Amino acid sequence: MAPSVTLVDFDTVKSKSHNLSLVDHEDHDLVLRTFRVLIADLVQHFNGGHPGGAMGMAAIGVALWRYTMKYSPDHPEWFNRDRFILSNGHTCLFQYSFLHLLGYKHMTLDQLKTYHSPSPDSFCPGHPEREHTGIEVTTGPLGQGIANAVGMAMATKHLAATYNRPGFDIINNTTWCMTGDACLQEGVGLEAISLAGHWKLNNLVLIFDNNNVTCDGSADVANTEDINAKMAASGWNVIEVLDGSNDVQSITNALAAARDSSEKPTFINCHTVIGIGSAVAGDAKAHGAAFGEEDVKNIHQKFGFDPEERFNVPDKVYDFFRKDLRSRADSVDQWEVLLDSYCKAHSELGDELRQRIKGELPSNWENVIPKSFPTSPTASRKSAGLVCNPLAKTIPNFMVGTADLSPSVHMSWPGKVDFQSPTLKTVCGINGNYSGRYIHYGIREHAMASIANGLAAFNRGTIIPVTSSFFMFYLYAAPGVRMGALQELQVIHIATHDSIGTGEDGPTHQPIELAALYRAMPNLLYIRPCDSEEVAGAMTVALKSKHRSTIISTSRQNLPQHVESNRYSVRYGAYVFREKEDAAVTLIGVGSEMCFAVEAAEDLERNGVKARIISFPCQRLFEEQSREYRRSVLRRVETLVVVVEAYAANGWERYADASISMKSFGKSLPGKDAYKYFGFDGKVISCKILAHLDAIEQQRALKSEFIEL
Amino acid sequence: MAPSVTLVDFDTVKSKSHNLSLVDHEDHDLVLRTFRVLIADLVQHFNGGHPGGAMGMAAIGVALWRYTMKYSPDHPEWFNRDRFILSNGHTCLFQYSFLHLLGYKHMTLDQLKTYHSPSPDSFCPGHPEREHTGIEVTTGPLGQGIANAVGMAMATKHLAATYNRPGFDIINNTTWCMTGDACLQEGVGLEAISLAGHWKLNNLVLIFDNNNVTCDGSADVANTEDINAKMAASGWNVIEVLDGSNDVQSITNALAAARDSSEKPTFINCHTVIGIGSAVAGDAKAHGAAFGEEDVKNIHQKFGFDPEERFNVPDKVYDFFRKDLRSRADSVDQWEVLLDSYCKAHSELGDELRQRIKGELPSNWENVIPKSFPTSPTASRKSAGLVCNPLAKTIPNFMVGTADLSPSVHMSWPGKVDFQSPTLKTVCGINGNYSGRYIHYGIREHAMASIANGLAAFNRGTIIPVTSSFFMFYLYAAPGVRMGALQELQVIHIATHDSIGTGEDGPTHQPIELAALYRAMPNLLYIRPCDSEEVAGAMTVALKSKHRSTIISTSRQNLPQHVESNRYSVRYGAYVFREKEDAAVTLIGVGSEMCFAVEAAEDLERNGVKARIISFPCQRLFEEQSREYRRSVLRRVETLVVVVEAYAANGWERYADASISMKSFGKSLPGKDAYKYFGFDGKVISCKILAHLDAIEQQRALKSEFIEL
Repeated sequence: MAPSVTLVDFDTVKSKSHNLSLVDHEDHDLVLRTFRVLIADLVQHFNGGHPGGAMGMAAIGVALWRYTMKYSPDHPEWFNRDRFILSNGHTCLFQYSFLHLLGYKHMTLDQLKTYHSPSPDSFCPGHPEREHTGIEVTTGPLGQGIANAVGMAMATKHLAATYNRPGFDIINNTTWCMTGDACLQEGVGLEAISLAGHWKLNNLVLIFDNNNVTCDGSADVANTEDINAKMAASGWNVIEVLDGSNDVQSITNALAAARDSSEKPTFINCHTVIGIGSAVAGDAKAHGAAFGEEDVKNIHQKFGFDPEERFNVPDKVYDFFRKDLRSRADSVDQWEVLLDSYCKAHSELGDELRQRIKGELPSNWENVIPKSFPTSPTASRKSAGLVCNPLAKTIPNFMVGTADLSPSVHMSWPGKVDFQSPTLKTVCGINGNYSGRYIHYGIREHAMASIANGLAAFNRGTIIPVTSSFFMFYLYAAPGVRMGALQELQVIHIATHDSIGTGEDGPTHQPIELAALYRAMPNLLYIRPCDSEEVAGAMTVALKSKHRSTIISTSRQNLPQHVESNRYSVRYGAYVFREKEDAAVTLIGVGSEMCFAVEAAEDLERNGVKARIISFPCQRLFEEQSREYRRSVLRRVETLVVVVEAYAANGWERYADASISMKSFGKSLPGKDAYKYFGFDGKVISCKILAHLDAIEQQRALKSEFIEL
Repeated sequence: MAPSVTLVDFDTVKSKSHNLSLVDHEDHDLVLRTFRVLIADLVQHFNGGHPGGAMGMAAIGVALWRYTMKYSPDHPEWFNRDRFILSNGHTCLFQYSFLHLLGYKHMTLDQLKTYHSPSPDSFCPGHPEREHTGIEVTTGPLGQGIANAVGMAMATKHLAATYNRPGFDIINNTTWCMTGDACLQEGVGLEAISLAGHWKLNNLVLIFDNNNVTCDGSADVANTEDINAKMAASGWNVIEVLDGSNDVQSITNALAAARDSSEKPTFINCHTVIGIGSAVAGDAKAHGAAFGEEDVKNIHQKFGFDPEERFNVPDKVYDFFRKDLRSRADSVDQWEVLLDSYCKAHSELGDELRQRIKGELPSNWENVIPKSFPTSPTASRKSAGLVCNPLAKTIPNFMVGTADLSPSVHMSWPGKVDFQSPTLKTVCGINGNYSGRYIHYGIREHAMASIANGLAAFNRGTIIPVTSSFFMFYLYAAPGVRMGALQELQVIHIATHDSIGTGEDGPTHQPIELAALYRAMPNLLYIRPCDSEEVAGAMTVALKSKHRSTIISTSRQNLPQHVESNRYSVRYGAYVFREKEDAAVTLIGVGSEMCFAVEAAEDLERNGVKARIISFPCQRLFEEQSREYRRSVLRRVETLVVVVEAYAANGWERYADASISMKSFGKSLPGKDAYKYFGFDGKVISCKILAHLDAIEQQRALKSEFIEL
């Protein structure tokens, strides 16, 4: 269903379009031809990759980088640069090739040729990766980039509202995000789109490479909605460009209008032809495979290049992109001068901003964490509030949000201001403004995690995003959490209601298997503290982990506060909680089930069996300790090690000989009853261990097998 | 932002509304008052639960069950009943209480009073659960119910197109789905909504309990989009009911119009007041807690009930709902008569339909699986096609779909017909009709899994849904997969590209930690076959597992076909692949990494170390075997057991002493190079094992620790 040409709600936009001369148009023709031939060559080189999208989007790239975006290849880390995000990450050659043409020094033609090569040192992986210069976020899993872009645009809005002062427009960059059909079908993209409209992020532009082709053929096989009307209903400006494959002028005008949009994010629906110039132009076959030698030759001929030559980029094309390299670098210098005068005029703010640009927290942050906690039973979600709220209140880097669980997750603090469009007050009486640091994500866990990645990726350490929801719903958020860990982003997830202690909400809300995912996820710390003291330790670890993401997993229900718990030992992953000479049993207590380990140890003692206890909040941290430390904590050779946790046991076999664990989904019962129902009770546990000790006496082989008791 | 009253695209709907008399209106008043007081009482009884939504939705329930829906409490499993799905599952008391009032025998008043009680035998868990009579699907995780409803409506469309014949409108039920604000914000809901519009499921009605309140307060804090316009843009009819709390007549009219909608699904935007009648009416406080004794008394008084009495349901209210119990049962009898004559008139179809109503496959299904496979190297995704395609082609129960990866997942078969609205042909040239059994889900993995749950839940075994995508993107789908496993639904997920062998697409596409999730997930079989033969075994297991979900996990790359592999042993989870007397080492080969285990065994042999090999496609199936069998396969006491798998090792510690595994995210390299880069190479593995054997000689304690080599 080809939508008609529309310009929806566009009258408020003041166009500052470039007037491109005839020379420009000639240049464009050469540039577009060169670019498309280059893409075809690169994909053919190692006979694999995604050529079609990149070829179709060429004119959009010219409009973006030549005429619109604010950046300097000599200063790729410039704080106030425009951010570009390729949500349709499989078209990465689009970005790599433009980085090369624009003069990013690391991206040589030889580097480009490593795309899909066996070289482990390539800057051109199959999807863009954040660790490489010029790439803002890693993309590939579809829809993520849109949410990341929303986070980036929020970061700008927030920092601008916090630091800009009259005459000092220090932070005013725009976020540009490319998307294909796919990201607009994915739930995470749709969630993020709703939020961007709600927040009126007028510094966000989403450019739709509308080639109407997906892997299965015409996009119409699975999608016939009216995307323009849908975006408008979601609070976006909509601009349509009919010939997005070639019409650099119209695209440039649309981008300029979008950048200057007064009150909404803008969606630019650019109609393009996938694989334009190839024999499979406009077809799904152009999406994800090399064209073949024959067609590559035809493409060369069609675009006026020698069919036998490869990787030919005329100097004129380089000149076209690089002629303003100097002036782009000058803009950065001018911004530095502006920042200097700002810091003089507003010295306190200036110091703070400079610190944040460096990605640092105020030096006193550790002192903000309470030194002690109430000794009465406390739900660890409340403990998380006791630890996080003062940090959030006093440290400007914190932006704390929730997927609509404010009353449950205890993450708001007295005097918090919501991150909202200030215009919302008059529309529907909702308070807040862009300087606010408390984020209502709505019931959108996936977008929450992925937007948080964007907030964190804006500039390392400038913003520490904290998300919060029930632990079970971090399964919805999991692809976002994964992308944060993969990109080494410092994002802190506060997950509450983390076991069957959640109770009446039942098996749909009781995580059984989810910890297994997060304990196996590389570069992610899944920390399950047993009380307030360990929550303080967990937050300290999370804040010192500048290159990884953390989940702090807390209870719904009240937990006893243990005299043996120790915040400073959380960093070791596990530690001796209660030592005992000549112990026969080591009990591993974890999170909210520590209380059962303690009860069981005491009951074993009454039955003449000495039991020691270790607290084990984080497997990954423990793995990083020396073998000597690990052995001294576990004492596996001398004791029967039994872990007590109301999750599936998977993974504990590394540390324990047996488990008190969950073998099924949970059950809707009050928390205490749910625990009892599944055998989480000191006496029951102790009995099982006694029986198992007897069985081992009789049959030594048992200790070489892991047993779920 | 209160939307104005609209009736969008409604002119095609022929209204067959009930004309309710004055008596009815008086009845309604009593019924609504009784219902609301009952809800307040039930939540107060154990001082917990969700009262507000249920109270606000009372009039919708009356309109649905009294005037609109087709069902019989005496025949709760009637095949052609209307399906009702409560996507906002926390309002479960709404459904439980109506089931009671309507005369579902199991749902006594005493049963209702077990809500939030410590009784493990309650039919009233904190969210609706499919195993209880009258509940079609388990809901709670938000957005799932909408996708389930889409699956249910598809099932009807498909079965009707397949079996109905002139004069025999055997299958013509409607699917009614309640949703709150939350499900409409969740990505999975939005994905499913797009698909329902695309497929023109005019037998689907989504009723929006629009109380504009979420946990965080006004829904406006996180959502200000124009939902009516958005739904219309997504291809839905939109009807708005202004007084959804009380106006039974308007709601009934809207439902009737929706049921008779000619070509689109219908969205009914019902404005209601959460917790109506309570002191916190219209406030988030009415959402998830008891009102307190004081307010409960006030509610009683306000609604004309004795403030001290509890659980008072006047006979007149029972009469109101139950007076047509007999005629409802008669309708079922009439349908059975119709089915009998259908079976006479169309005997072949009738036999098939009866078999499917019983949830059975054709008796010859095992013969449809190929007896042998090509011996040349074959990607196991292709093997999955070789096994699944003939089944899908010949067995009508199969409905196979993909999240836009048809060219990659090999799940389509010659002559397959797409499930599509037949009108799409004229709109945009897309072929297909509702009898089609190949489903293009678009790039919507989460909705795919959750819609598949709806297809499976329509009636056990009638439809066997098969989904397909890259394994990595089953992380997007995970909440849906979980809900399938939790509900014991037979859904088969074909996951391809399942390791670092995926190659150039890089770490975003290489699952490292995901198997840990699915191996820990209760009631889910995660099967990783090593070649075509084991794929055949995996599919056989999946088809015999009528009460669980299965993921069959396959490779992108070609795999050698092993003479030792055995389809019949897959059911045991693991089996001896290559036995060796006096072996020092047992190698566990898994899925596409079996080839490295074989190479390593051969290299060990060359170095004088005897190594046996076991194939280990499924941990959960292995756990179900006897201890004797498990010991005989693993031989842990006599041999060093080493698992070879390109995933995080977590969980393998139960079966192995050491692993060749992944300790980080993957890398973008051609598949073979990615394996080499991470040490997956027979020689390298063999060297590591030899070194480890030496270390064990020197230090026995090593065998009591799990080592990542």
